[in-house]
Amino acid sequence: MAYGLARRELRPRVPLRHGEGDKYHLTSVEGLAALSLDALSSVAYGPEAIVLVLIAAGTGALSATFPVTLVIAGLLAVLVVSYGQVIAVHPDGGGAYAVGKKDLGPTVSLLAAASLVVDYVLTVTVSLAAGAASLASAFPVLGSHLLAVCLIGLALLTAVNLRGVAESARVLMLPTALFIVSILGIVVLSLVRGHPVAVVGTDQPVHATEALSVLLLLKAFSSGCSALTGVEAIANGVPSFREPRVKRAQHTELMLGALLGLMLIGMALLIRRDHVAPRGGVTVLAQLTAGAYGTGWPYYATNLIVTLALAFAANTSFGGLPVLMSLLAKDHRLPHLFGLRTERPVYRWGVVTLALLAAVLLIAVNADTHRMIPLFAIGVFIGFTISQIGLVRHWAVRRPHGWLRRAVLNGVGAVLTAVAGVVLLTTKFLAGAWVVVVAIPLLMLLFDRIQRYYTTVGRELGLGEVPPPVRVGDSLVIVPVGEVSRLTQHALSAARALGHEVVAVAVHSDPAKVRALRESWDRWNPGVRLDVVDSPQRSLVEPIVEYVQRAEEGGRQIAVLIPEVEPLHRRYQILQNQRGLLLAAALRARTDVVVCVVPYRLSL
Amino acid sequence: MAYGLARRELRPRVPLRHGEGDKYHLTSVEGLAALSLDALSSVAYGPEAIVLVLIAAGTGALSATFPVTLVIAGLLAVLVVSYGQVIAVHPDGGGAYAVGKKDLGPTVSLLAAASLVVDYVLTVTVSLAAGAASLASAFPVLGSHLLAVCLIGLALLTAVNLRGVAESARVLMLPTALFIVSILGIVVLSLVRGHPVAVVGTDQPVHATEALSVLLLLKAFSSGCSALTGVEAIANGVPSFREPRVKRAQHTELMLGALLGLMLIGMALLIRRDHVAPRGGVTVLAQLTAGAYGTGWPYYATNLIVTLALAFAANTSFGGLPVLMSLLAKDHRLPHLFGLRTERPVYRWGVVTLALLAAVLLIAVNADTHRMIPLFAIGVFIGFTISQIGLVRHWAVRRPHGWLRRAVLNGVGAVLTAVAGVVLLTTKFLAGAWVVVVAIPLLMLLFDRIQRYYTTVGRELGLGEVPPPVRVGDSLVIVPVGEVSRLTQHALSAARALGHEVVAVAVHSDPAKVRALRESWDRWNPGVRLDVVDSPQRSLVEPIVEYVQRAEEGGRQIAVLIPEVEPLHRRYQILQNQRGLLLAAALRARTDVVVCVVPYRLSL
Repeated sequence: MAYGLARRELRPRVPLRHGEGDKYHLTSVEGLAALSLDALSSVAYGPEAIVLVLIAAGTGALSATFPVTLVIAGLLAVLVVSYGQVIAVHPDGGGAYAVGKKDLGPTVSLLAAASLVVDYVLTVTVSLAAGAASLASAFPVLGSHLLAVCLIGLALLTAVNLRGVAESARVLMLPTALFIVSILGIVVLSLVRGHPVAVVGTDQPVHATEALSVLLLLKAFSSGCSALTGVEAIANGVPSFREPRVKRAQHTELMLGALLGLMLIGMALLIRRDHVAPRGGVTVLAQLTAGAYGTGWPYYATNLIVTLALAFAANTSFGGLPVLMSLLAKDHRLPHLFGLRTERPVYRWGVVTLALLAAVLLIAVNADTHRMIPLFAIGVFIGFTISQIGLVRHWAVRRPHGWLRRAVLNGVGAVLTAVAGVVLLTTKFLAGAWVVVVAIPLLMLLFDRIQRYYTTVGRELGLGEVPPPVRVGDSLVIVPVGEVSRLTQHALSAARALGHEVVAVAVHSDPAKVRALRESWDRWNPGVRLDVVDSPQRSLVEPIVEYVQRAEEGGRQIAVLIPEVEPLHRRYQILQNQRGLLLAAALRARTDVVVCVVPYRLSL
Repeated sequence: MAYGLARRELRPRVPLRHGEGDKYHLTSVEGLAALSLDALSSVAYGPEAIVLVLIAAGTGALSATFPVTLVIAGLLAVLVVSYGQVIAVHPDGGGAYAVGKKDLGPTVSLLAAASLVVDYVLTVTVSLAAGAASLASAFPVLGSHLLAVCLIGLALLTAVNLRGVAESARVLMLPTALFIVSILGIVVLSLVRGHPVAVVGTDQPVHATEALSVLLLLKAFSSGCSALTGVEAIANGVPSFREPRVKRAQHTELMLGALLGLMLIGMALLIRRDHVAPRGGVTVLAQLTAGAYGTGWPYYATNLIVTLALAFAANTSFGGLPVLMSLLAKDHRLPHLFGLRTERPVYRWGVVTLALLAAVLLIAVNADTHRMIPLFAIGVFIGFTISQIGLVRHWAVRRPHGWLRRAVLNGVGAVLTAVAGVVLLTTKFLAGAWVVVVAIPLLMLLFDRIQRYYTTVGRELGLGEVPPPVRVGDSLVIVPVGEVSRLTQHALSAARALGHEVVAVAVHSDPAKVRALRESWDRWNPGVRLDVVDSPQRSLVEPIVEYVQRAEEGGRQIAVLIPEVEPLHRRYQILQNQRGLLLAAALRARTDVVVCVVPYRLSL
C-alpha cells in the first residue's frame, strides 16, 4: 500500500512527539535551552581530548592546549557565522542532509545521511560514557564499573523513550541554566582566586613517547574539535522558533557560540595555568571543578549537573534519529515504514534499534569516551563540511550582494573541518576510525539500493499514469468452517453480505465426524453449501489451499473469509486463531485471492 | 477459528513425520530397532548411577551393585509383563496419559502429561550428557568441554529436526544392532576371559562418608532404575506395528526386556568381579569396554557406537514431544495450535522450544549426567506408577479370568516404582528434585487453566447448539488509497466484486496533495467515490480507524480492503506493506469490521 508522501517534514533534532510540533514555538532563550545542551555538554570531553593527545609529548606539551583551543574557537566562530547563513538560506531547517540534497546532489546527501546516522549513535554513546566518567569523578566507587553505569543509563533512556516522553524546552531550561552557571562559575571563580583550591584524582606516571610535532598538534586540534559537535542543532531546528524565526534562530546560534567559546577558552586558560594533566579516576573537567569549588558539596553538585546535561544530550538522539529516518523514508531511501514515525510501534522500533547499536558500541570500546571521539568527530565533520560546501555552491550560483566574502568564509570553514576530519581519519584509522569508513559507505549503499527498489516498484505500479478502468465482476466467498457454532453463523453472515456466492468448506479425515457435521449443518440449514474435503494426512491448511486454487480457475474474484475469535484479554491470544494465521499465510504465499478476517469478540 | 477435532491420534514415541504413519508398519524386529534404543541406551548411565551412590560407603560397598541390579532386573520383569498387559488393554497406544485419562480420571492424566513433558526434556539432556561423557572417554581432550560438546550435539539435533528428518525403523536398524552386539560382546568376552585386559581413566581417591545403610541401598536402587527409562516406548507405539499388532508388540517388549536385563546383570557381574569404581575421565561403561576389548580400535568404536545410540535416544524426544502436545491440544489442554503438528511452522516451534528447555537445563547442571538422573527417574516413575495403577483399576472393574493375579502383579509393580520415585524425591529434594516438584504442578495448572478457557469459549460459541439463522444484508467496502496507480485499480476491482457499495478513502495533510489526487482521480474516473480525510497530526492509521468507526454506525456489514504489494523476494518484504499491517492491527483491535487483504504481485 502506498499512501503517497505527506508534506516534507523538517524537524529539529530536539525531540518532538506526536503532534507536538504545532503547539509550541520557541523564543531565543527557550531555543537555547532546547537545542544547545548537545553542544555545550561537549566541554565535558572536548578539552580533555586535547590534553590526552598532547600528553604523548610529555607534560610540557600541555601548554599547547591553549593555542590549540584558540584555533578551535576560531573554527567555532566560522561555524557560528556559517550556520547563521545556513539558517537564512534554509529557514525550513533540515541540516546537512537537506542542504546536501538541495545544492550538492543525491550522492552527497546520501553521505550526509549516513554520517548523521553514525553521529546520532555516537552522540548517545559518547555522552553516556562522558556522563559515567563525570559521575565516577564524584563517586570513585563507580570507577571500575563505567560500562555498567553506561548500560544502566542507556536502559533508563530507552525505557523513558519507549514510554514516550513529552520533553519540551521548559523541561530543559533548568538543567541548561545550571550547566551554564556551573561551568562559567568554574572559569570565573578560578581566575579570580588565582590558584586551585583542591586537587582530586590519583597521580599518573607520564611517559613522553613522541616529540611535540605539527602532526601531534593537528591531532590535538582534530580531537578537540569534538567540543564543537552539536552546534548544527539550532540550524536544524529553525522551524521550532517563534516568528521572526530566522532572526531568533540566528540570535540563539550566536549565544550558543559565545557561551561555548567562553567555556572552551576559559577552561584552556585554567589548564595552562594549573598545569592540569590527566589524573586517575577523575575527568579534566572534574579537576577544574575541584580547583574552583574545592571538594565540598559544590564539587558533587557540579559533577551531577554535568552528568545530567550529558544524559539530556544523549537523549536528543532518541528524538533526532526517528526524524532523520522519516525524512529518508519520505525520500524512499529507507523502508516507508519509518515515514510513519508518529505511529507508536514504528517509533518504538526506532528507539530499540538505536539502543541496541549504542549498547554494542559501548561494549566494544568498554565505555571509553576517548576511543569514540575520532569516530564521533569524523561523522560530525562530514556534516559540517557538506553544509559549508553547500553554501559555497549556493553563493556561487546565486551571487547575492557580498557573495564572494561569504563564499570565502564558508570555504575556509569547509577546508578547516575537512582537514580536521582527514587528520582524524588518517591518524586514527587503525585505532577505530576504519569502522566509520566501513559503516558510512555501507549505509549509503543501503539507502541507494532501497531507493532503486522503490523506483522500480513505482514504475511497475504505474505511478503517475492513468491506470486501466476498474473491473466489475462476480465474487465467490469461501468460508473454512470446523463445526456448527455461533462463530460459523457470524462468519457466514459476513460472507453473504460480501459475496455473490458463498460456500463453506470443512476439512475432515474421519467419516463419522463428516456425517455428524453434515447432520448438524442440515438441521441448522444456513442456506449455504457445505463442501467437505478429505485430508488423509490430517493437515488442515493444505486441503483448503488446494480447494481455493481449484476455485481460482473459475475466473471469478475469490475471497477466503477466515473467522477469528478475539479474546478480551491479550494473554489468551495464543490460544486462538493460530490456524487462521497459518491458513492466511499459506493463501497469501500460494494464491492471489483476497484474504478476509472477520472478528468474533469473546467476553473473556 | 475452530475446525473441530480430527480423529484422536495416538502415535508412538518414535518420530513419525508428515503422513508417514500410514506408509509403514513394523515387524517385531523392526519394532525393536525403532522403539528400543531409548531404553537400551540407558545402560550407559544406569549402572554407573548405582556405583556413584554406593561409593559414598567406600569401595567395599560396590559389591552391593550386583544385588541392587538383581532387584532392578526383577522390577524390569514386572514392568515388561505389565506393559505386555497394557499393550493388550490399550491397543491404540497412548502411554500413561491415555491410561490415566481412561481409568483414573482427569487429574491423574494431567499428572501423567506433565511428567511426560518433563521426561521428554530430560531424555534429551541425559542422553546428550551421557553421550558426551562416552565420547570424552574415547577422546580425553573433550573431558573439560563436556557442556560445549552437549550444546553442539543439541544444536545438531535441532538443526536436523528443523529441516525435518525422515527417520524410520530402517535407519535405526544398524545403530541398534551395533549397540546390542557391542554391549553383549563386552559381557560375553569379559566373562570368557576372566579378567580385564586393560584399565582406562585416572585413579580417584575414595572417601567413605557414610555406612552402607538400607537408605543408601534404596538410593542406589532408585538411581539405578534410570536404566529402565524407555521401556514404555513400545506400549506407546502399538499402532505402528503390523497386524497382529498386539502380539508383535508384546513380543518386542519381551525381547527388549530380555536384552536389557541381560545387559544390566552382565554389567553388574563384571563390576563386582573387576572391582570397578568411578575413575577420572571415563565412564563405567568405558571401563568395562576397555576390560573386554582393550584400548585398541574396538574401544574407540564401542564408545562411538554408544555415543551414537545416545544421540538417537535424545532424538526420540524431538519426535515424541510434538505427538504428546498434539494429544494435549486435542483434549483442549494446550493451545489448539499444537494440534496442527504436521504444519511446518507449528512443528518448528515445538522443536525450538524443546531445544531451548534442554539447553537451559544442560547449562544449569553443567552437563553432569548424574545431577539429572533423579529428575529424570522421578518423571519416568510417575508414568510407570500411573500405568500400573490404571491396570489394577482396570482388572478390579472388569474382573476377567485371573484378574486377581494380574492385579497383584501390577500392584507390586506400582508399589515398587512409587517407592523408587518417593525415595529419589525425598533424598534428592534439595539436590535438584525440587525442580520437578515445582515444574509438574505448574504444568498441570497450566493444562487445567487452558482447558477451562476452551470450555468457556465453547459455551460462548454455542458449540453443540443450533445457531441463529445467517443474516443477509448489504455491505460497504472501504479501500484506503494513497495515490492513483495500478495497485489502486487492482484493489478497487476486488472491492467492487465484493461490496454493494465501495468507497475509497485517502489521508492527507497537504491541500496541494489533495488537489493533485482529486485531479488524477477525476481523470481516471474509476466509478468509485473518493473521500479525503484530513490528518493534522500526519498519522495515517488513526484517521482511517475513525472513518471506519463512523461508517460502522450505519449498521451495514463493513469491510476494509487493504491492498498489499507482494514482492517476489522475501528480502523486500520489510520495504512493503508495513502501513497495511499497522492499519489491520488497529482495525482488529478497535473495530468489528472485516479486514481484507488483496495481494498485488511484483516481478521483483
